[in-house]
Amino acid sequence: MKKTVFALAALSLALPATSFAQDNNGRYGLPPGAHDEIAWDFVEGITTEIGPRLAGTVDEARAREWTMEWLRNHGFANVMNEPFPIQTWVRGEEQARIIAPFPQPVVVTALGYSGATSAQGIRAEIVHFATTDELRAAPEGSLAGKIAYIGHAMRATQDGSHYGYFGSARRQGPGIAAQKGAAGIIIRSIGTDDDRLPHTGATNWPEGVTPIPAAALSNPDADNLERMLARGETVAMELVLTPRHLGETMSGNVTAEIVGSDASLPPVLLACHLDSWDIGTGAIDDGAGCAIAATAALRVAEEGQPLRTIRVLFAGAEETGLWGSRAYSAAHADEPMGVGFESDFGAGLIWRLETNFSRTNPALFSRLAQAVAGYGVLPAPQIVASGGADLNILRDQQAPIVDLQQDGSRYFDLHHTANDTLDKVDPTELAQNVAVWTAVAGVLANEPGDIRGADIIVEE
Amino acid sequence: MKKTVFALAALSLALPATSFAQDNNGRYGLPPGAHDEIAWDFVEGITTEIGPRLAGTVDEARAREWTMEWLRNHGFANVMNEPFPIQTWVRGEEQARIIAPFPQPVVVTALGYSGATSAQGIRAEIVHFATTDELRAAPEGSLAGKIAYIGHAMRATQDGSHYGYFGSARRQGPGIAAQKGAAGIIIRSIGTDDDRLPHTGATNWPEGVTPIPAAALSNPDADNLERMLARGETVAMELVLTPRHLGETMSGNVTAEIVGSDASLPPVLLACHLDSWDIGTGAIDDGAGCAIAATAALRVAEEGQPLRTIRVLFAGAEETGLWGSRAYSAAHADEPMGVGFESDFGAGLIWRLETNFSRTNPALFSRLAQAVAGYGVLPAPQIVASGGADLNILRDQQAPIVDLQQDGSRYFDLHHTANDTLDKVDPTELAQNVAVWTAVAGVLANEPGDIRGADIIVEE
Ligand SMILES: [Zn+2]
Ligand SMILES: [Zn+2]
Ligand SMILES: [Zn+2]
Ligand SMILES: [Zn+2]
Repeated sequence: MKKTVFALAALSLALPATSFAQDNNGRYGLPPGAHDEIAWDFVEGITTEIGPRLAGTVDEARAREWTMEWLRNHGFANVMNEPFPIQTWVRGEEQARIIAPFPQPVVVTALGYSGATSAQGIRAEIVHFATTDELRAAPEGSLAGKIAYIGHAMRATQDGSHYGYFGSARRQGPGIAAQKGAAGIIIRSIGTDDDRLPHTGATNWPEGVTPIPAAALSNPDADNLERMLARGETVAMELVLTPRHLGETMSGNVTAEIVGSDASLPPVLLACHLDSWDIGTGAIDDGAGCAIAATAALRVAEEGQPLRTIRVLFAGAEETGLWGSRAYSAAHADEPMGVGFESDFGAGLIWRLETNFSRTNPALFSRLAQAVAGYGVLPAPQIVASGGADLNILRDQQAPIVDLQQDGSRYFDLHHTANDTLDKVDPTELAQNVAVWTAVAGVLANEPGDIRGADIIVEE
Repeated sequence: MKKTVFALAALSLALPATSFAQDNNGRYGLPPGAHDEIAWDFVEGITTEIGPRLAGTVDEARAREWTMEWLRNHGFANVMNEPFPIQTWVRGEEQARIIAPFPQPVVVTALGYSGATSAQGIRAEIVHFATTDELRAAPEGSLAGKIAYIGHAMRATQDGSHYGYFGSARRQGPGIAAQKGAAGIIIRSIGTDDDRLPHTGATNWPEGVTPIPAAALSNPDADNLERMLARGETVAMELVLTPRHLGETMSGNVTAEIVGSDASLPPVLLACHLDSWDIGTGAIDDGAGCAIAATAALRVAEEGQPLRTIRVLFAGAEETGLWGSRAYSAAHADEPMGVGFESDFGAGLIWRLETNFSRTNPALFSRLAQAVAGYGVLPAPQIVASGGADLNILRDQQAPIVDLQQDGSRYFDLHHTANDTLDKVDPTELAQNVAVWTAVAGVLANEPGDIRGADIIVEE
């Protein structure tokens, strides 16, 4: 991190207030050009000084060390790493070429836990499926020696809701293709951009299924492939993917605290994940989220010691299967959490407040809604928040959860690609995230009562 | 090409008129959603069925065969290839990594005619120059064993005028660095995007200078490198570039004609280049340009046989040094040209008409201005057109030249990158180009008099 980090932290006190006592100045509560120096310092630092930090690798370990130093430098207490083992997969060569009828190279990237080809690759006919369901309906054995291709194209949505449905091509598609005997599978990138930058991401192999080579094709290449397929001739591809399994290596969850004044109250957990895919630098996924979570904790502390402890959880090994989230929940099963929320959707403006306690604690929900009203945030009491990938511990404990929904309209242009770099983080939007988180965390960390509320039926 | 090409050509006659007798319907002379099926068929076909077509390679030869078949299928006469030899360079491996103080991979691509490293690459300290002039001012020998880096960042402009000035980093920078003893050179991509897709392009080695490894860094990587350099520590890079020289191979200029009724009149030459860089598919550079030139000739012919012959020139080996343009001028030095214009700047809307004969033939300039007035085109009689890269023959003959200036605001986002793909061509903007070219070519091909006009001084 920069040598000037203390000076920046001190300076930030003189900046536009991002405290939970918002002043409603400016549009959406922030003046034009608002900037949060601390949050920026984190995301600028980790992308510049660490960059890619794939789960279970030395890069992720360097990121943990870097982050723990940053947290200590910024005054966090109880900075620690809780290690856990994972099965680690690393990328190798990745090359693909249409070899017939129209030879030309195409751009692919291996999906996480993809099987490998030989160094010479495979050469096989491509069989086109419009959707994952179409692949599922293919006759058994019909794919023997062939490469399945799923072309289903996701759309950009503000809430990112298309990702779950369309993402089945990546998560389930390879397992289905393997079960039907395919030699490999190529999917259209789960992404909304038109760049020659394919989107990686983990795939799930069902129990007992041997992984096959599985890769994402960039959207322009998928368009091109589909134009070739539409001409009606047999299209064949050469595919080289040489990822490797490193076996068991260590990842870790980094945590740190702003210690509250009342140790009897369960903590407020602010979560993100520290690992990133190897092909980008983890700026929007999820450097920004960690910057938001950590800075919000510091901004609450600036207003005075909170009642409850605020703990930040920088989970390890999220991308390759939520290893850190599960490990953390298991290790802390006997430690009740007061409430948790997570940032893992870039740095777009927060536009909606959701909780899982609006019915059981409407008064608290109302106070949260008021705290963020000036930031352009819609209270959505009818939506039941379920939290993000790193909040297993909250779900396992059936504990209170808040979702501060970010605008993800452009998130899937960049998600899991080489294009996930610092220039994609808008400083003013990052500052709005910190301000909203600070407002919400400030209310919750100073809440003396049970956040879940009385278990009473509330008339609507 | 598609098997349906004849059907499309026939169908196109029923589409909105794009003839030189424009009807001024709709905004800018075209109805919303206007589409030119012939032009689209060319650019769709060559990107899908050929793709990259690097000068002097078998891919460029395949592109010539494909194009000649397309031209014959569309009714052109005298379809031919005029071969010429070039010195051919092909890309190899390209990998780069910051190795100190913050190890992480960065994305580079070799510049055309770059020297090679060994397969193991070079490891060297980076010396930062803000501009090419700064590099020029570096003391002799000061770069021995080091990698020069030029960070000068070009801006997007509508007329593309920044390219010439900022492009010196690519064209001259490597030669200067080599003369000062550098082990290699890295430049910020000559481009206006924020994608991890570096921009290639040819570099010029001065006589007697031994080429050194020379690569472009993507803009986000250049930003990252500069953040590292700004921290004040020595930054070192590992660079692997293994391009090769194939020696002399053959390229060729493809030409074809719409034969005019008066063989005594010098022809109208419509030019573009057929080769492309190897990392993209040559959609905007210059598949679109060839589509526009060829289709305009056909659209003029649809109105009846023109007076002058219209010849299309699909030049070979433009990207690697204007080999085709020079060869064509030399081979046809004794054949006077009537007028020439070229399309080699994407498919953005044409917004300005320029010629080099507005003073000597103001009446003809005025008729051209009227012919395109409805298409949202500004007549610029004060600008002296000098033509594009493939118009050497016009410049060498001091012949009439027209420039139909396209909007290039976003051209340098894509130029010479992997992102140069079909999805970047807007069909309606392509149709506007064809319409404007048809209007201008129609007037000129039916002009019985000398296009240059009487050599008289015109009062302004
Ligand atoms: Zn994430
Ligand atoms: Zn992710
Ligand atoms: Zn060009
Ligand atoms: Zn070019």
